[in-house]
Amino acid sequence: MKPQDLVAPFLVTDGSRFSLKDHPTGSGSWKQSKKDTRKLLEQGVERLAALQERLYAQDTWGVLLIFQGMDAAGKDSVIAHVMSGVNPQGCQVCSFKTPSAEELDHDFMWRTTKALPERGRIGIFNRSYYEETLVVRVHPEILDRAKLPAAARTKTIWRDRFEDINAFERYLARNGYLIRKFFLHVSKEEQKERFLDRIARPEKNWKFSAADVKERERWDDYMAAYEDTIRHTATLHAPWIVVPSDSKRFARIVVASAIVEALEGLDLAFPTLSPARKRELRICRAALEREGAPPRA
Amino acid sequence: MKPQDLVAPFLVTDGSRFSLKDHPTGSGSWKQSKKDTRKLLEQGVERLAALQERLYAQDTWGVLLIFQGMDAAGKDSVIAHVMSGVNPQGCQVCSFKTPSAEELDHDFMWRTTKALPERGRIGIFNRSYYEETLVVRVHPEILDRAKLPAAARTKTIWRDRFEDINAFERYLARNGYLIRKFFLHVSKEEQKERFLDRIARPEKNWKFSAADVKERERWDDYMAAYEDTIRHTATLHAPWIVVPSDSKRFARIVVASAIVEALEGLDLAFPTLSPARKRELRICRAALEREGAPPRA
Repeated sequence: MKPQDLVAPFLVTDGSRFSLKDHPTGSGSWKQSKKDTRKLLEQGVERLAALQERLYAQDTWGVLLIFQGMDAAGKDSVIAHVMSGVNPQGCQVCSFKTPSAEELDHDFMWRTTKALPERGRIGIFNRSYYEETLVVRVHPEILDRAKLPAAARTKTIWRDRFEDINAFERYLARNGYLIRKFFLHVSKEEQKERFLDRIARPEKNWKFSAADVKERERWDDYMAAYEDTIRHTATLHAPWIVVPSDSKRFARIVVASAIVEALEGLDLAFPTLSPARKRELRICRAALEREGAPPRA
Repeated sequence: MKPQDLVAPFLVTDGSRFSLKDHPTGSGSWKQSKKDTRKLLEQGVERLAALQERLYAQDTWGVLLIFQGMDAAGKDSVIAHVMSGVNPQGCQVCSFKTPSAEELDHDFMWRTTKALPERGRIGIFNRSYYEETLVVRVHPEILDRAKLPAAARTKTIWRDRFEDINAFERYLARNGYLIRKFFLHVSKEEQKERFLDRIARPEKNWKFSAADVKERERWDDYMAAYEDTIRHTATLHAPWIVVPSDSKRFARIVVASAIVEALEGLDLAFPTLSPARKRELRICRAALEREGAPPRA
């Protein structure tokens, strides 16, 4: 199966008619065996590693991958499984938690902008500025801490934020950044199972927070916020991939395939040599080969 | 073979009697087959991934791994091979090149300090503040660009830098940072072979720089600078590992073993629960299990 065929049903490049109810959380008709799925992921990870090497050597394109999802949607785990195997020198992961006092003392995209990857690198945001139209929209009281001047807290704040985010992503794309945004879409039932698992297994206890259970009460509000966010920010240059994530294994191959497909669309290649540089290499080779040889008369 | 046995001959925890001539660049009596060596590396990488998971969950210790070596000593490649497989979320690599104008406008450890890993993470420095006692010592004219006040450019500048670096690393260690410093030790002959390989293979051309060949002329000065640096900065809390690196495969297993051994020495464990937190988990589990059930009378 080709990466683009696997990804196509979940790719949203134009949000205007987006509706979350058209997007499943289950893996649907996916009928591959566990073994085949693992093999498919291995192939994806291998291909990704090869593409990343060219990206790094070429050092012109930058790549930004954004992961959003409800608690326990599998953000950490999908990042670990898809990106392990990639040279860590060319890949950086930033997790964004509750903003610090210093971060709140700036505009809402300041902290993420500072963390953007260099050209030649893959930057992964585990949560991002999209929290500002998701959790902040569900809990507008968070805006009270954001130190906005009263005049900036307008009635159109969410629409304005979508516009600002779109403008920022368009700017990044124009500057040579490839952007892909992943919404790991789980069902409320699956989240419950994962929470119970985190409670049951001692080595997973540390990942569990009582506050997460509290947030479940606002599930429908969160889904409405995700739907509206994707509707307003899915674009051709910065599409969302709405990843069915009730099955972690299926989610991983969709994410890996989407990244591979996106990178395949770039003109990644090892840098080619100018005639001047070719000449330089020849001179250097001669100098190295002459070393230790008796000096020429 | 246990990690500590493999590493012991190359570990320098007290530099006072260090001499580079006691340290080989070749893998000496290492007689394992290619297959066994690969298996040993795989085991090391696997163990490292497991330890890193605990490090991340515990979120108290930080780990700083410094890689130094001549051009083509294999820094990039050893980092890729040893650290691929580790969750990129808990691992970050910073490469330090020629300092920028902003960096030169600060003290010499400013740029690396800014890049230190958070607790719970492994931070890898590909080159580091040690360049300040290596390349800068071989080329003291670089100090002219460093914007030091004349009075700060003393006759004891290298000794002072060693003292400052030792004090900084002692401070880091006291603050819960594990530090390991790797000198990838290659022979001049092996470097030549690797340069010729970079010239011969088109996909490696981009890694080659004519300036690197020029630097070879100062080989002995570099070795003297490395020897003096290790002599003055190898300590119990921040040891150097002088890795024989003419064989890339051998270098990788020495590095992997040294990191595994160092992490094994920490008290890494998944966080344990306080009685209050245990009670909280029980309440959350009950709340989750009650969901959807008819409300109790």
